[in-house]
Amino acid sequence: MQFLSDNAASVHPALWRAMQAADAPDAPYDGDALSQRLDAAFGEVFGRDCAVLWAATGTSANCLTLASMVQPHGGVVCHREAHIEVDEGGAPGFYLHGAKLMLAEGEGAKLTPAAIAGVIDPIRNDVHQVQPHAVSITQASEYGRAYQPAEMAAIGAYCTERGLRLHVDGARFGNAVAFLGCTPWEACQGAAALSFGMIKNGGMSAEALVFFDTGLADVARYRRKRAGHLQSKGRYLAAQLLAMLQDDLWLANARHANAAAQELASAAHDRLLHPVEANEVFLRLTGPEREALRAQGFSFYDWGDDAARMVTAWNSPMEHVTALARAIAAL
Amino acid sequence: MQFLSDNAASVHPALWRAMQAADAPDAPYDGDALSQRLDAAFGEVFGRDCAVLWAATGTSANCLTLASMVQPHGGVVCHREAHIEVDEGGAPGFYLHGAKLMLAEGEGAKLTPAAIAGVIDPIRNDVHQVQPHAVSITQASEYGRAYQPAEMAAIGAYCTERGLRLHVDGARFGNAVAFLGCTPWEACQGAAALSFGMIKNGGMSAEALVFFDTGLADVARYRRKRAGHLQSKGRYLAAQLLAMLQDDLWLANARHANAAAQELASAAHDRLLHPVEANEVFLRLTGPEREALRAQGFSFYDWGDDAARMVTAWNSPMEHVTALARAIAAL
Amino acid sequence: MQFLSDNAASVHPALWRAMQAADAPDAPYDGDALSQRLDAAFGEVFGRDCAVLWAATGTSANCLTLASMVQPHGGVVCHREAHIEVDEGGAPGFYLHGAKLMLAEGEGAKLTPAAIAGVIDPIRNDVHQVQPHAVSITQASEYGRAYQPAEMAAIGAYCTERGLRLHVDGARFGNAVAFLGCTPWEACQGAAALSFGMIKNGGMSAEALVFFDTGLADVARYRRKRAGHLQSKGRYLAAQLLAMLQDDLWLANARHANAAAQELASAAHDRLLHPVEANEVFLRLTGPEREALRAQGFSFYDWGDDAARMVTAWNSPMEHVTALARAIAAL
Amino acid sequence: MQFLSDNAASVHPALWRAMQAADAPDAPYDGDALSQRLDAAFGEVFGRDCAVLWAATGTSANCLTLASMVQPHGGVVCHREAHIEVDEGGAPGFYLHGAKLMLAEGEGAKLTPAAIAGVIDPIRNDVHQVQPHAVSITQASEYGRAYQPAEMAAIGAYCTERGLRLHVDGARFGNAVAFLGCTPWEACQGAAALSFGMIKNGGMSAEALVFFDTGLADVARYRRKRAGHLQSKGRYLAAQLLAMLQDDLWLANARHANAAAQELASAAHDRLLHPVEANEVFLRLTGPEREALRAQGFSFYDWGDDAARMVTAWNSPMEHVTALARAIAAL
Repeated sequence: MQFLSDNAASVHPALWRAMQAADAPDAPYDGDALSQRLDAAFGEVFGRDCAVLWAATGTSANCLTLASMVQPHGGVVCHREAHIEVDEGGAPGFYLHGAKLMLAEGEGAKLTPAAIAGVIDPIRNDVHQVQPHAVSITQASEYGRAYQPAEMAAIGAYCTERGLRLHVDGARFGNAVAFLGCTPWEACQGAAALSFGMIKNGGMSAEALVFFDTGLADVARYRRKRAGHLQSKGRYLAAQLLAMLQDDLWLANARHANAAAQELASAAHDRLLHPVEANEVFLRLTGPEREALRAQGFSFYDWGDDAARMVTAWNSPMEHVTALARAIAAL
Repeated sequence: MQFLSDNAASVHPALWRAMQAADAPDAPYDGDALSQRLDAAFGEVFGRDCAVLWAATGTSANCLTLASMVQPHGGVVCHREAHIEVDEGGAPGFYLHGAKLMLAEGEGAKLTPAAIAGVIDPIRNDVHQVQPHAVSITQASEYGRAYQPAEMAAIGAYCTERGLRLHVDGARFGNAVAFLGCTPWEACQGAAALSFGMIKNGGMSAEALVFFDTGLADVARYRRKRAGHLQSKGRYLAAQLLAMLQDDLWLANARHANAAAQELASAAHDRLLHPVEANEVFLRLTGPEREALRAQGFSFYDWGDDAARMVTAWNSPMEHVTALARAIAAL
Repeated sequence: MQFLSDNAASVHPALWRAMQAADAPDAPYDGDALSQRLDAAFGEVFGRDCAVLWAATGTSANCLTLASMVQPHGGVVCHREAHIEVDEGGAPGFYLHGAKLMLAEGEGAKLTPAAIAGVIDPIRNDVHQVQPHAVSITQASEYGRAYQPAEMAAIGAYCTERGLRLHVDGARFGNAVAFLGCTPWEACQGAAALSFGMIKNGGMSAEALVFFDTGLADVARYRRKRAGHLQSKGRYLAAQLLAMLQDDLWLANARHANAAAQELASAAHDRLLHPVEANEVFLRLTGPEREALRAQGFSFYDWGDDAARMVTAWNSPMEHVTALARAIAAL
Repeated sequence: MQFLSDNAASVHPALWRAMQAADAPDAPYDGDALSQRLDAAFGEVFGRDCAVLWAATGTSANCLTLASMVQPHGGVVCHREAHIEVDEGGAPGFYLHGAKLMLAEGEGAKLTPAAIAGVIDPIRNDVHQVQPHAVSITQASEYGRAYQPAEMAAIGAYCTERGLRLHVDGARFGNAVAFLGCTPWEACQGAAALSFGMIKNGGMSAEALVFFDTGLADVARYRRKRAGHLQSKGRYLAAQLLAMLQDDLWLANARHANAAAQELASAAHDRLLHPVEANEVFLRLTGPEREALRAQGFSFYDWGDDAARMVTAWNSPMEHVTALARAIAAL
C-alpha cells in the first residue's frame, strides 16, 4: 500500500486512449493539430488568453517559464524550501544562466508580500548586489498548503508594484484548485506564467507551461528547443494535456487524491505538522510508530527523525487509504 | 503517402505494449526495475560494458553526452552540416556552456581524420584560440551515408592519438547498422558515447545515451537532472528502449526503412545526390517534377531548388513506396 | 626594431601623468569624478548622447557590449576572421551564454549587407535554427581595412531593416578614423555600441564601451560587475580614457601609426596583400626574405607561409620605420 | 579623514616605480619577463610550488580560481556573508556556469568544519540535490576576523576528508598574515588556490591567483582569457605584484593598516562588534554619535542602524587615526 509519492503513479486510462488516438502521423514537433489546440483549450479553463507549451517534466516547465522572465544577471525570490531551490539539481542555475535564487521564509513553505519584502528590501540598488527580476511561489506549496485567492491577489499586487514577474510552480495545481473551490485563475491570479502539473495527477510525460503574459512564450519556444525539450512526436504530449482538460479530468483526479489525504488527516488530527490542503500529509510519528505502520504494509517517506510524509494520488485505492487511516488511529 | 520524415511516424505496437506493461507504479525517476536493466541489455548488444541513460529527445541525448566530454572553454569538431550545428536551436551552446562547434568539411556530411585535422591543425596551442576537446560524427550521416567499420576505426584511432573524445550522434544508428551488416560496436567503435536513436525508428519518446566510457555517465546523470530530463515516470522510457532491443526490433525496423529507401533509389539511380546507405533519399528533381509527384499524393521536403529529400520509416507501407518508385521512374 | 604588434607598446606619457594625477583617493568603482565625466566627454567626440563604461581589455569590451544586445538563444553575424571568432578564446560563448557566432565572408575581413544577407537569408524562421540578434563588424578590420562612411551607412540601414543591432569592434578605431578623415560618428554610424580601443593606441589598461543606444548600458553595468571587470580603483581607467580624448591625443597617436604603415606600404607596393588603411601591413614575403629582414633586426609575425604582418604603433620610431621600408625595398 | 574603505586608496610609490620601469615593450599578455617570474617569486613566499596568474579584480580572482575547481553542476560552501555571495553581483553564478553557493553560518563570518558539515551533511547523495565540490573561506573574514593556523589546518583536513577543494578569498590576506604572525602558508594551508589581494593593500589593478594545486592553473589560464581578463600589457600587472613582494612590502603595508585599526579598537573597546584582527573595525555607534564624528570630518560607512564600519589602509595617516580614536573615546 503505497503512499510514497504521486509522482510514479499509473497513467489514467483516458490518457492512454488519447495517446493511442494520436498515433497516426501528424506534423512533427508542435505543428500537429493537437498541440495547436492547446492555447484555446487552456484559455477556456482560465477564462483569458494564454499561450501554452508542453514539456516533459516539472523541472523543465519551471525553468523554461522562469528563463523567459529573468535575465542571467537577475534573481528570483522563492521560499527556502521551494522545489526549484532544493530538489531540481540546480536546474534554475543552468536554465537561467547563473541567475540567483533569493531565499525567503514563510510558514508552510508559503510566501507573503512581507516575506518577499524581507528579502528584497535589504538589497542595495547597485551593481554589486543581484537585483530581483521575478518571484516564484508553489501552489499548492511543498508542505501541501494552498494560497487562498486573496493571498494570491496580494502577492500579485506586490509584484506589480515592485516590477517583478510572478511565476507559479503548479506541480500540484489541480490539488490546490480542488481544495480552494475557486476558479483556476483565482488560484494563480497575477502570474505571468504557471507550470501546470499533470504528471503527478495521472499524466505520463506532459506538463503545461501556461503563459498569461503571452509574449513570454515567444522566448520560451526558442528556449524549449535549445534545452532539447521539443519532442518530435509532440502530439503524444498534447494528447495527454487535452485529455486532462476534457470534462475536467484534472479536477476529478485531484479531488480523489485530496479526499484520500483528508481521510488520513482526520484520523491523525493531533499529529499533523501542517494543515492538509492538497494531497500531502505530514505527520508526527516516532520511529517505532513508523515501523509499526510499515510492518502492516504501508510505504511512505520519513520526514526527519520524528515525522513522515504520506502522499495520496489520483488513483489511491480508498481501501488502502481507509486501512492506513485506521492503522494510524490505532497507534 | 508520406515521405516527409521518420520523426513523426507512429509508435511500434510492441512499444505500446511494453509501456502499458510498465503501468504499475514502481520507483520514480530511474530507480525502477526497467531502467536498472538498461546497462546489461545494451551491454549485450554492444558486447562490452556500457552505462546507459534514457532521455526524451535526440537533441538532449547529443548534448548530454557531449557535455560530459567537453569543458566550457573547449570545442567540438563536427561537420558543417551536422545536426548539432544546424538544427538543434543552439542546444550545444547551452548544454556545453558556450563551448565552440568547430566546423569541418567532408563529402556526404561525413568526416575523416584528414578533415578533422584540417580544422585542428591550424589551431594555435595558446589560450587565445579555443582548443578542441571532442569530435562528433553522425552515423548514419545527415545525408544518409554510413561510416564503414574501417572508417570508424580510423577516426577512433585519430581521436585517441590527439587526445580527443569521440561522440557518435546515432539518430539513425539502426539504419546504419542495418546497412553495414556489421556489429553495433563496429559501427561506432572508438566512441566514448553514442546517442542511440530510437524515436525515428518506432519509438515514442526515448533515446538511449550509451556511454562506453562509463565514467562519463556519472557526470551525465547530474546534467540530465539539471536539464530537466529526468522524468519521474522514467519506466515508460526504459520500457520503450528494452522493447526496441527485444529480438532486435530496432534492426528489423531499420531494415524495413532501408529496404524502402533502396527501392526508391533503384528507381532513380541517375537522380541520386548521395548514395543511399540508410533511409534517406536525396534526388535531383525539378520544380515541375516535384509538383507532379505531389499531385499524385506524395509528400516530401524540397531540398534546395532542384532536389527533394524523401525519408522512409519503419512502417512505410511498401505499396506507397512502390507507387512512389514508379512515379519517379515515370517522370 | 619591433613591428610585432601595437598591443604591447609603451604607455603614452600623457596617460602616465593623468593616472598619477588621479592618485588621491576618490569614490571607488565608477563613482569617482573622472568616471562620471566619461559620458559627456565621449558625447562631445561623437556629437550625440552616449553612455560610456570602461573595461580593461578589448575582449571584455566586445563581449560586454554584445551581451547587452543578444539573448542567449540568439546569434551574432560576424566575419569568419573576426577577432571575436578567432582570437578571444571563446569569450563570446561565455559572455553571451552560448549564443552563436554566424560566420560571413568578405574581402579584407569586411562585411557588406550582401554578405550578411548571405548568412541570414538561408536561416529558416523556426526554433530549430538560431536566429540572428546582432551584427558585429571591426573598424578597422582584422586586415587593416577601413569601412567608408557610406559602407557603414549601408550596413546600419540593413541592420535597422532586419531588426538587428549593430556592434562595432573598434580595437583600432582611432586608426580607422585617422585614415578616413571623417567624423568619429561617420566611422561607426548605425552602431548601437562601439568598443573604442585605446590600449593599442597608447593606453595601459582601459578601453571605452560607448553605447549610442544608451539603454543598453544599464544592462552592461550589471554584466561588467558580474564579469569581475568593475575595478575598485576605476579612476585610473577613466583617467586614461579622458587623457586620450584630451586634444584628440587618440587621433594624433593613430595618425603617427598610420603614417608609419603608409611608409612601409609605399616601399612594398607590389607585395601588399591588402590595401593599407590603418596601421597593419600584410606583405608577401618568402621565407628567405623574412629571414633576411630578421637578420637586420626587424621583428614581425609570419602570416602563413609566404607573407608577414607588420604592425606600427603610436610610438614606432620613424627611423626604424624608414629602415624597414628601405630593407624591404632592397630585397 | 577617510575611513570608508581601503579599496580606493592611493597606489604605493614603489608600485608606480615598478610599473614605469616596465614601460619598455615586452612580449604581450603574460609572455613578458615579469609575468614569467611570478611562480618563483610567490613560490618563495609560500615555501612551495605555486602557479600564479594575475587578474585585475578580486571578483575575477575569486571566480577564476573557483571555476577551476567546481563543475557547473556542483556547489561551493561559503559563509552566508561571504563576499562572493553578497557583493560580487552574481559573478560566481556567471563564472561557474550556474553552480550553487551553499550558505553556512559562523561567528565573525568564519566557517568551521562543523559549520561546513551542517550544510553538507543534510544533502542527499542523489542527482536531485546539488553536490558540493569546494569550500570557500575568506582570510581575513568579511568581519575582519583571522583564521588561526590551527583553524586553517582543521578546515583543510576536513575538506580533504570530504573530497572538497578549498579556496581562500584573500582580499585582505596580507592583513591576516600580519595579524597572525605566522608564515603565509600557515595562514592558508590546505588551500588548492588563494586569491591573494594586493589592490586594497597599495596596488592599482593586480591581484594574484596563487594555485598550490598547480594543475588547476592550466584550466584557469583558458578561463582567464575567455573572461577577457588576459590584458595585453600584462607586464604592468606583474610589475605591481612583484613590487609588492619585494622586501615584503605587502606585509609592511598590512602592518600599518592593522596598527591603525588596533589604535581605533583600543579607543573603543566596549563598542566592538567583533575582535579586530585585520584592518576593519566594527563599532556600536548610535546615529547621533555617528553624526558627531562626521561633523568632525571623519567619513565611514553605517553598518545597519546602530553601528559603523571603519576601515584603515596601508597609508592611513596616523594623525587621522589618532584623531578618530580620540573622538570616539570622547563620545
